[in-house]
Amino acid sequence: MEHRTYPEYSSQYPLLLTTFMKRPVRLYPDDIGVVYRNHLTSEYFRFTWRQWYRRVSQLAHALEKKLGIAGASGGIGDRVGTMALNTHRHLELYYAVPCIGATLHPVNVRLSPEHVVYTIRHAQDKVIFVDDSVLPLLEGIYDQVKDTVRAFVYMSDKPGLPQTTIPDLLAYEELIAGEPEDYDWPWLSEDTNATLCYTTGTTGQPKGATFTHRQLYLLTLHVMATQAVVNTPDFDAQGGGNRLGENAVPMLNTPMFHIHGWGAPFLTVFSAQKIVLPGTFTVQGFCELVERERVTSVGIVPTIAAMLLDYKDFHKYDLGSLVRISIGGGALPLGLKTKLEKLMPNFRVSSGYGMTETAPTTVASFLKKHMVGWPKDRVDDVMVKTGLPLLGLDVEVVDEQGRPVPHDDRSVGEIVIRGPWVTQQYFRAPDRTGEVWRDGWFHTGDIAKVDTDGYIVIADRIKDVIRSGAEMVPTVLLENLIQMADFVLEATVVGVPDPTWGEVPLALVVLRPGFAASEQDIVDFLARHGVDSGKITRWMLPKRVAIVDEIPKTSVGKYNKKLVRDQIDRFLAVARDVAPARD
Amino acid sequence: MEHRTYPEYSSQYPLLLTTFMKRPVRLYPDDIGVVYRNHLTSEYFRFTWRQWYRRVSQLAHALEKKLGIAGASGGIGDRVGTMALNTHRHLELYYAVPCIGATLHPVNVRLSPEHVVYTIRHAQDKVIFVDDSVLPLLEGIYDQVKDTVRAFVYMSDKPGLPQTTIPDLLAYEELIAGEPEDYDWPWLSEDTNATLCYTTGTTGQPKGATFTHRQLYLLTLHVMATQAVVNTPDFDAQGGGNRLGENAVPMLNTPMFHIHGWGAPFLTVFSAQKIVLPGTFTVQGFCELVERERVTSVGIVPTIAAMLLDYKDFHKYDLGSLVRISIGGGALPLGLKTKLEKLMPNFRVSSGYGMTETAPTTVASFLKKHMVGWPKDRVDDVMVKTGLPLLGLDVEVVDEQGRPVPHDDRSVGEIVIRGPWVTQQYFRAPDRTGEVWRDGWFHTGDIAKVDTDGYIVIADRIKDVIRSGAEMVPTVLLENLIQMADFVLEATVVGVPDPTWGEVPLALVVLRPGFAASEQDIVDFLARHGVDSGKITRWMLPKRVAIVDEIPKTSVGKYNKKLVRDQIDRFLAVARDVAPARD
Repeated sequence: MEHRTYPEYSSQYPLLLTTFMKRPVRLYPDDIGVVYRNHLTSEYFRFTWRQWYRRVSQLAHALEKKLGIAGASGGIGDRVGTMALNTHRHLELYYAVPCIGATLHPVNVRLSPEHVVYTIRHAQDKVIFVDDSVLPLLEGIYDQVKDTVRAFVYMSDKPGLPQTTIPDLLAYEELIAGEPEDYDWPWLSEDTNATLCYTTGTTGQPKGATFTHRQLYLLTLHVMATQAVVNTPDFDAQGGGNRLGENAVPMLNTPMFHIHGWGAPFLTVFSAQKIVLPGTFTVQGFCELVERERVTSVGIVPTIAAMLLDYKDFHKYDLGSLVRISIGGGALPLGLKTKLEKLMPNFRVSSGYGMTETAPTTVASFLKKHMVGWPKDRVDDVMVKTGLPLLGLDVEVVDEQGRPVPHDDRSVGEIVIRGPWVTQQYFRAPDRTGEVWRDGWFHTGDIAKVDTDGYIVIADRIKDVIRSGAEMVPTVLLENLIQMADFVLEATVVGVPDPTWGEVPLALVVLRPGFAASEQDIVDFLARHGVDSGKITRWMLPKRVAIVDEIPKTSVGKYNKKLVRDQIDRFLAVARDVAPARD
Repeated sequence: MEHRTYPEYSSQYPLLLTTFMKRPVRLYPDDIGVVYRNHLTSEYFRFTWRQWYRRVSQLAHALEKKLGIAGASGGIGDRVGTMALNTHRHLELYYAVPCIGATLHPVNVRLSPEHVVYTIRHAQDKVIFVDDSVLPLLEGIYDQVKDTVRAFVYMSDKPGLPQTTIPDLLAYEELIAGEPEDYDWPWLSEDTNATLCYTTGTTGQPKGATFTHRQLYLLTLHVMATQAVVNTPDFDAQGGGNRLGENAVPMLNTPMFHIHGWGAPFLTVFSAQKIVLPGTFTVQGFCELVERERVTSVGIVPTIAAMLLDYKDFHKYDLGSLVRISIGGGALPLGLKTKLEKLMPNFRVSSGYGMTETAPTTVASFLKKHMVGWPKDRVDDVMVKTGLPLLGLDVEVVDEQGRPVPHDDRSVGEIVIRGPWVTQQYFRAPDRTGEVWRDGWFHTGDIAKVDTDGYIVIADRIKDVIRSGAEMVPTVLLENLIQMADFVLEATVVGVPDPTWGEVPLALVVLRPGFAASEQDIVDFLARHGVDSGKITRWMLPKRVAIVDEIPKTSVGKYNKKLVRDQIDRFLAVARDVAPARD
């Protein structure tokens, strides 16, 4: 790699992940920067920033010299797959691989084995780094990927190698041991590809979204700029609880194989925050890490919130350091919300929106200036909306002719996005790229409305929307409303054939343990909280409701509507017709 | 200009000032965004963001159609000069000119008329926009620029045109009236030049530093990211006083013809903050604007602080909204600091460093994690240091071989910088560019030391450093120490010939009104507060001191050491020899 000097250097100083990595090492070399707790053994591993940086450098040397990984500058270099949980080693791979010009492919190990095989083969991963707890999955698919992948590296907190059917397995710690503790990082073109993230593939095969250094750098910088200026509910409330900055202690709860762990590996390192890695989520591990490491910030999904509240030893832990708990990935049931607010006084509802192709953050819920100081219930109403675009991102909701819909809280359209960190293209799939990139906009396939203040509210996926008569019934909007009932744990809505309307909505509902409700109660709740408040119209109400024990989900915990539709007879068998609503 | 679509659009979404301009218009169209007060008539002008945006659009149309200004995409378009104070019109020019692909040249009207002429001719400004109060200056130089500049536009709060010697003067308000209120802004290459800022030219002719859209965008984004993470003294102190975000009401006190008004025209617009423009600084205007507009944030120089404190009606105003007052552009005398802290409880000392070529922000004083919670005097000691680099910027202090000096608070070297917003080149001056850009670093010509925590402390300009025997005497360090004395208003140090040492330091000191001190008192103060605390060595103490009424200054208020040296006999005539120090 040629080192560039004046003049390119000055004008085109490249935006590289290398810059993120170097900052905490320079600023806080001897502070503990990375803490990892093994969720099975409860063992702790702590690294100063200098120690962590040395391991990243050693890994970079090993990748090049021992594994033959070749980087590119511009374009795309060799792909390196990870099948790993949230550990310090995964964080080391997040920097060593892209910073030598290669591409990191964090394999989503929660996909079906068939899809895991597909993504590894499609990415043409040359090497796979696999955690001990994920090894059985790899063993099961080894025969289907062995012609593509030429080396497998085993990552474990225990020394040595396991009994395995995989030949020539290498050990991570042995691989990096003895390598030089610094590395002369190349001045790559900022347009060098850095990561490859596959969609979950609910329709068809997963698609590989590509991201360059520039895109990930700009994602991170715009998230930080957004944090610097927007209003959140705890703003002004408790002495900077919101604006924690480098003193925050984030726990990376979202798997790092899900769309860059929602961006945390980049944001936290550049911010020089102490990073807490839990392997994978366990209730006890969560509580212990918060207490011991004084974790301040964590994002969780509603299911995990419910698990925490049901944990019998919850009260034994001091979770007082938590000043930012944000809930994402689904609407928060009202009962759960009330309970959380009682047990965790610092708890705040917030919402957001993103997808694999957007790296992922695009829209998040903030308060506009005139809402600062509003009472809590009104603030909460705003904060559960999908939100406003991040700084620097173009987001529109458009009709089928590509015209922005009126901001009237009623008209629906598709969300389209363009901006510095939207994926340019799917890897080796120009046709599928052409389907989403049209007229200069990335088409999300998500249906939303916009309120008079400009807040976007997700209404549905295009492919899930129910066509009832001449109208569209937005199912996600219905689901979120049903989930506000304190007797509801989960709810999804799909269309079922109807001789009069073409399709009508069927709601599948899982009740919260210890609560009782009838099918009619559910529609009545919807009428009271949805129709009467103007959030939906009466003709959108489900015509049938099925109370069930479980709703099929995808690998990332979303409702799997494709599977629901495939098994529709099973659900229709237990469904009951309901009246539009009792008065 | 061709509108680009997929695929370039997505991967290379350009970083343009256009994005900054559009944000507040989209988010807060009907909020007051820009407030300007005429400092002569006390008249107020208020604009909603929508109104301001319409005027920017109208100006863009007029620039192209009526003035024949042609933009570029990549490279550099026509130059448009401004000779203007801090008004809404100047802020309109800050966006309309670059966003059509032309280059804004804010003429520093405080330079000598000779240098003003030089910069206009060197920039080849096609049009000059001139404020009514600056018109006399333009009239004086008209004959020397009329062959370069083909149109002059007069900006005034009063309608019509003045009696003037300049033929064919156009009126700004008439020029933009009737133009369309929206503009189809081009998708420029982000490497299109946006601004041209001349240095003050203390040695030789001013040099024109060029900045592209990308560079100004990235300057702004990194400043915001820095604000999002670093610790400042008022952090945690008073409910988010520091993290004001979009609720801040900044007053732009620094002239917009000084290095982008320290970046404020970009930062405040993208942040959607209400912007307060005072024309030019007056004591009464300052107090009135703070009270009426509830100004929260302002940066001032020590001289202005002193003027405020001496203002007899100071106590009549409610300045309680001011939660961020930062002092820049010189060391703050201790007496002034104590008085400011008493009268303005929210006052905080802070320091920073930048120059024309760096757009300007590069280094600023923040607290490191372990300093949060330190007592005020220790915090103040940190905050008066020049500081730490902004996120994303490479800053080193190097010896003559280009090696980083040890971080021992003693070794001095030159500050070198590289990063996304350092100027690439001086306009039409490749030789002068080559003098500062060497070995991949921009050489600042500033001498500094680095303490054990990594804080940079400016010690001198290379050309001002005194060579005494085999040692270097850093004059800025001495000046800052002398100015800590409560009896000192201003102080500068230059070298004078000495038969034994080659050169020895001469200190010129202006006493504060109402204070008395002898030449020896000054050296004694230096010995006590500098030598005894280890900040300087005994042999650095001035050998001669002159107490004077005034020290010559440059157009930006810095000590003009060139002029001092030119007139050295006058100062030596009143200087007295001093003993190294009394015990």
